[in-house]
Amino acid sequence: MGEKVNIKDVAREAGVSIATVSYVINNINKVTDNTKNRVLEVIERLGYQPNINARSLVKKESRIIGIIVPISEKEKDTILLDNPFYLEFLSSVENKVRVNGYSTMILSIYEEKELIKHLNSGSLAGIIVLGAANKFVYDTLSSVDIPIVVVDQKQSSDRFYYINTDDDMGAFLATEYLIKNGHRNMCILLGGKSDTLVHRNRLDGYKKALSKYDIEFDAKKVIEIDVSYEGGIKAVDKILEVDENITGIFAISDVVAMGVIRGLYDKSINVPRDKSVIGFDNIRNSKYFIPQITTINQFLQTKAETAVNIIMKINDKDTEFIKKYLNNNIVTIPVHIVERESVRDI
Amino acid sequence: MGEKVNIKDVAREAGVSIATVSYVINNINKVTDNTKNRVLEVIERLGYQPNINARSLVKKESRIIGIIVPISEKEKDTILLDNPFYLEFLSSVENKVRVNGYSTMILSIYEEKELIKHLNSGSLAGIIVLGAANKFVYDTLSSVDIPIVVVDQKQSSDRFYYINTDDDMGAFLATEYLIKNGHRNMCILLGGKSDTLVHRNRLDGYKKALSKYDIEFDAKKVIEIDVSYEGGIKAVDKILEVDENITGIFAISDVVAMGVIRGLYDKSINVPRDKSVIGFDNIRNSKYFIPQITTINQFLQTKAETAVNIIMKINDKDTEFIKKYLNNNIVTIPVHIVERESVRDI
Repeated sequence: MGEKVNIKDVAREAGVSIATVSYVINNINKVTDNTKNRVLEVIERLGYQPNINARSLVKKESRIIGIIVPISEKEKDTILLDNPFYLEFLSSVENKVRVNGYSTMILSIYEEKELIKHLNSGSLAGIIVLGAANKFVYDTLSSVDIPIVVVDQKQSSDRFYYINTDDDMGAFLATEYLIKNGHRNMCILLGGKSDTLVHRNRLDGYKKALSKYDIEFDAKKVIEIDVSYEGGIKAVDKILEVDENITGIFAISDVVAMGVIRGLYDKSINVPRDKSVIGFDNIRNSKYFIPQITTINQFLQTKAETAVNIIMKINDKDTEFIKKYLNNNIVTIPVHIVERESVRDI
Repeated sequence: MGEKVNIKDVAREAGVSIATVSYVINNINKVTDNTKNRVLEVIERLGYQPNINARSLVKKESRIIGIIVPISEKEKDTILLDNPFYLEFLSSVENKVRVNGYSTMILSIYEEKELIKHLNSGSLAGIIVLGAANKFVYDTLSSVDIPIVVVDQKQSSDRFYYINTDDDMGAFLATEYLIKNGHRNMCILLGGKSDTLVHRNRLDGYKKALSKYDIEFDAKKVIEIDVSYEGGIKAVDKILEVDENITGIFAISDVVAMGVIRGLYDKSINVPRDKSVIGFDNIRNSKYFIPQITTINQFLQTKAETAVNIIMKINDKDTEFIKKYLNNNIVTIPVHIVERESVRDI
């Protein structure tokens, strides 16, 4: 043969995939003896010389970005399914990771040993921590030297990078939008964990808007709910119990807003005719709901892509990016109001 | 000290995490020199003897189940975001994987080299292929000796395990339900790829129901759509163009059903007052939509958990499970109708 024989020629001639030839060359025990012998026979017959560079390329560590997803208070299930927000974030991470030739691993933290094993494996390029994690996780992560990006949490270590949403501004804009539509009797629905950054900042923004428009803050109208569709449905009884004349409802997230609207519908209270509801997040299906959800866009995709970007730029030692975006290790993603159908003038 | 010193004692004494001690013991370059020296000093001072078993445990390969998610026809983005079905499936896989002490990796198949690298890494316990993949992926997977579970695809290799939904029965039940509610002028919305198992079987079930109730099949009323909210919205014009008197619409999935209902709403056509729409999947938010979506439950969680189970049982060589469930390497998940609000008597 005139031309140099390559791995594709071997695969074609042996009637197997390139991967299979690679296994045989690298002596990886993943093919049957029959196949192995056939490949070896073809390699000999064609005089194929495995390229050393190609071999080391195939054997190079996989590039993996890990994501730690929050576990519910029952400490067993994740809250991935409770709120499409998390799945959309995960999906946007996966997309950004994939187009850059990496893979995404959802890290098991059900057993602490597992996390340590993954960190020890040396194949992780970085880790994204989505939402709250426990102390063990933070302690363990703070001792490794790969980039760690923490999403929506307050800064607890200068070893980590933080991505937050401008929750304060978002809550201010949402509340102001209700007020500008004539609502003065309002409530805010917030998740139960009042010590979180998101909870505190959104409450702050809500209060600022009330204050700007001389509306008295009423602590009874801060209603704690589970951040899920069901939580939204269950919130309806609480809202009506606090004050059935409330006309403007600021829900902590779109999924809660939809639940509230559904719960009100079951009591023949129409949104937006009878009451207005504004969400937060701008998840995908918020614009397909009936009514379409008026909400605060927190640019989920940008947020997810920024998390991945930080890991890649740190690993690439891209000083320009680091100087420009990582002021004090925190990136705050701006917000924007999205006017749709669930809020109306009164 | 009377008792044997363990790794926790070292960690406590050195003021670091157990993971950090483990890195130092295993000489993994993930801690600063300062920390390393402190840990080594404590190890010496306390006379700690690393347990060989514990060390090998920490160094053991991670147990990872890989999932390959379908890429859109644009060959760049996944279709994860187009249909909550995929994200719910992924999330159910992740949950089952995690509670069994494994982690989930979303495998990058954007570059073929990446897939081979992951397979070569030896850390994968098995792979789930969700939906359609290309020939390269199937060829590569058929040469490895870990369990491969293929979801919603026709059988192409006896090396793989297959999980399917009883699509034929599901489509029959959906169509029959419309008929029993008095609808005789109906259409079916199907994804564009008419060569897929799902497409063919659901069309078969639809035809069988028409035939049973002596309703003539009309090929014009098989309408091709994109399987997404937007696809549902866009389907409305097509439906009305084919026959504006159609009263019963069988959508290929819940996300399409919701899009159709939203699209009809925008033309002041109310579901279920004016037209009835039935979905397929029973995704989570189908019961929170207004109207709640009448649909076919394909027991997504069971399906996802079965995929994970097959991998674990095969690896455990659980012959009872294999004999009982893996007849001819195919598991078919049964379906059930869920009566809600989007279909009504005419």
